[in-house]
Amino acid sequence: METEFGLIKRLQRKYSLEKIGDDCAVLPQNAKTDLVVTADLLIEDIDFRLDWTKPEFLGHKALAVSLSDIAAMGAAPVWSMLSIGVPEKIWKTDFVDKFYAGYFRLAKKFGVELVGGDVSKSPDKLVIDSVAAGETRKGKAVLRSTAKAGDAIFVTGKLGGAAAGLMLLEKGETYENSKYKKLIERQLKPNPQTEIGRILGENRVATSMIDLSDGLSGDLAHICELSQVGAKIFAEKIPVEPKIAVLETGKSKTGKRKPGLALALDGGEDFELLFTVAPKKIFQLEKLLAGHKISRIGEVTANAEIIELVTDKKIDVLRPEGFRHF
Amino acid sequence: METEFGLIKRLQRKYSLEKIGDDCAVLPQNAKTDLVVTADLLIEDIDFRLDWTKPEFLGHKALAVSLSDIAAMGAAPVWSMLSIGVPEKIWKTDFVDKFYAGYFRLAKKFGVELVGGDVSKSPDKLVIDSVAAGETRKGKAVLRSTAKAGDAIFVTGKLGGAAAGLMLLEKGETYENSKYKKLIERQLKPNPQTEIGRILGENRVATSMIDLSDGLSGDLAHICELSQVGAKIFAEKIPVEPKIAVLETGKSKTGKRKPGLALALDGGEDFELLFTVAPKKIFQLEKLLAGHKISRIGEVTANAEIIELVTDKKIDVLRPEGFRHF
Repeated sequence: METEFGLIKRLQRKYSLEKIGDDCAVLPQNAKTDLVVTADLLIEDIDFRLDWTKPEFLGHKALAVSLSDIAAMGAAPVWSMLSIGVPEKIWKTDFVDKFYAGYFRLAKKFGVELVGGDVSKSPDKLVIDSVAAGETRKGKAVLRSTAKAGDAIFVTGKLGGAAAGLMLLEKGETYENSKYKKLIERQLKPNPQTEIGRILGENRVATSMIDLSDGLSGDLAHICELSQVGAKIFAEKIPVEPKIAVLETGKSKTGKRKPGLALALDGGEDFELLFTVAPKKIFQLEKLLAGHKISRIGEVTANAEIIELVTDKKIDVLRPEGFRHF
Repeated sequence: METEFGLIKRLQRKYSLEKIGDDCAVLPQNAKTDLVVTADLLIEDIDFRLDWTKPEFLGHKALAVSLSDIAAMGAAPVWSMLSIGVPEKIWKTDFVDKFYAGYFRLAKKFGVELVGGDVSKSPDKLVIDSVAAGETRKGKAVLRSTAKAGDAIFVTGKLGGAAAGLMLLEKGETYENSKYKKLIERQLKPNPQTEIGRILGENRVATSMIDLSDGLSGDLAHICELSQVGAKIFAEKIPVEPKIAVLETGKSKTGKRKPGLALALDGGEDFELLFTVAPKKIFQLEKLLAGHKISRIGEVTANAEIIELVTDKKIDVLRPEGFRHF
């Protein structure tokens, strides 16, 4: 059966959709700026479960996922739209008020203005479509398709926390009762890297960027495919969320070389940023992001679409569909 | 229970949402133009039924409803985004391909570029969020809030057809077998008044405008409320879709003064335009829209929020919630 990615690629070719394929579409706005826009659909029991989350968290996450796409373009967020379809059983409660409270708390933090959207009844599932728009300097949006061999690869923050949080929820833990509250919060209430995205865009230090929604392995593969480059990343350098080591199941195809590595590589929804930097700009980058947690995890290579994972004495080749050993 | 309108108004006040309340939000773009944006959520079994429509029609309608909002601002459409959540039983068929074929046929007609959106699985219902953006000359978007007492009131096209089509579908008629195919098509495959909207905006002849999605009575009430004016409309002047007279049930609170009048007044989703014009510009208007069907149906009054419907020898006062006799 065709995947969502497959459908989008097919439509892209069939209808010559040139603005599709990055975190956001880039649209000319005026002599100085471009507008970047994105939409994210969140559907109950596909993208979230009401018995796992809280309305404030869900409202926060609805905006956060779109702000993360804006950040990944090196843009500053400006406005948003929110469409929400609400089943009657939820409509009757204070859920919607709490949902918007979570949404607006995050919107206020980053100065995002809600300018539109739609509200509808829904037969049984809650559905949310989150649209956000940001601005970049003209022609300076940071794309997925512009990484160069020799660039250094960086990620922000710690990885694997959101996937570990999901694992805990799937095992029946709750946010209220878990001793791993922080991990569950990473899953339910992710923080977009709005500030770092804006700094990288304004100062033009990243050659390419993407947000980590599908997981490091999958999102790095997107950059490699669109830039027609490869990557070599070092297991030791990957900033695994410390708390997840004890949760590592070891079932992943990555093996168990480093505790938590599988979740950090393959787990999704961390909403950190993955970006590449030309060697001569690394010093400038480290100065610009002095107050932020970033990790240099590897480098861009000329081996188009080959991602190498370097562990102790071995190199694995990682593909979008998983790992393959030499 | 609070209505969707009620929720939106409450959020608007609570969070000071100044850009919400018109057909589109108006956003500054550059020295010459503003951007207008809108989102419309369509949910299976709330806004459409799959056994009534065809995938091509639904794809067409998804874009049409948003283009209608763009037209109502006097803007020319430019780009769009489409988010779609698809249940597995539909995903497996050619439904999605046909849906996009309908969407892109209309997009091509008006030069609208699809620049983004999202595709997701959905547990059981098809959900669609349609976003569209257009351009107007700077500061010249035609709002709902700027009608003036003394202006003439116009509508495009014929009214009541979409509601009559819905009535036929509810009675069990099908598009394929009905002898009122055109009426059913007005419901399932509405045509946005993109050309007229653009002409009115470019030439700045309308003082206010809205698209007819809730029905003439409801949408005129929106203009009256936001402009703090009233309206006097003449039953004889309302361009009732000719074919619907035979379908008129007479159950409406409007009575049966004119065959089809109730459907034309209270029926929704015609996606025609309702606009007001200063008396001195009526001649210019009629010249500009010489090739298009428009009807002058009444005039704007100073009686804030009072809508009078003039029939043979009587005047009814129409309110958003229905009619009240003197």
